[in-house]
Amino acid sequence: MGQCHCHKKRKDSQELTDVERAIEIVINNFHRYAVKGRKECLTPNELRELVVQQLPQLSQHVCSLDEKIECLGDPDEAKLEFGEYWAIIGEAAKGCRVKK
Amino acid sequence: MGQCHCHKKRKDSQELTDVERAIEIVINNFHRYAVKGRKECLTPNELRELVVQQLPQLSQHVCSLDEKIECLGDPDEAKLEFGEYWAIIGEAAKGCRVKK
Repeated sequence: MGQCHCHKKRKDSQELTDVERAIEIVINNFHRYAVKGRKECLTPNELRELVVQQLPQLSQHVCSLDEKIECLGDPDEAKLEFGEYWAIIGEAAKGCRVKK
Repeated sequence: MGQCHCHKKRKDSQELTDVERAIEIVINNFHRYAVKGRKECLTPNELRELVVQQLPQLSQHVCSLDEKIECLGDPDEAKLEFGEYWAIIGEAAKGCRVKK
């Protein structure tokens, strides 16, 4: 439960490409922090912890990330689904990519 | 040009976490295939090539990925920005994650 299905299905990690393994890391990172309440969602506090611990460099490129997290609702009760988590990381990645 | 800014700025890859390095791989994969026309965009054909070569396992979880690519417009002329690429991978990752 809570792990990428691709990881369970295959016998050997060699079957995944580097890019797929990278995506798997980002997926599993979501589940690692989604511990409170439903395992399929992050609370805003869990997302903040994830950002501080796992995205210290990337989050520097998104000035408003902390504000965005505050807007998500009750820090311990609001539920953030995987698609929203992915979109937030995408925004950070876009910021990182553009500022060159 | 066309590489993740984080990568250029830091002196040592140890400064990035595993998750950040994973995100960097997904970012750089976009630029690796965005060779025709504007370097900042993928054409539908470039995206198809990327999916076939880099996401063979992940794309199995998204039945309609090929249809989606066809809907993007002229195979060699339409321009797909980074945010759209990120969203398509997120949809595939979501499909992969749910089917467990």
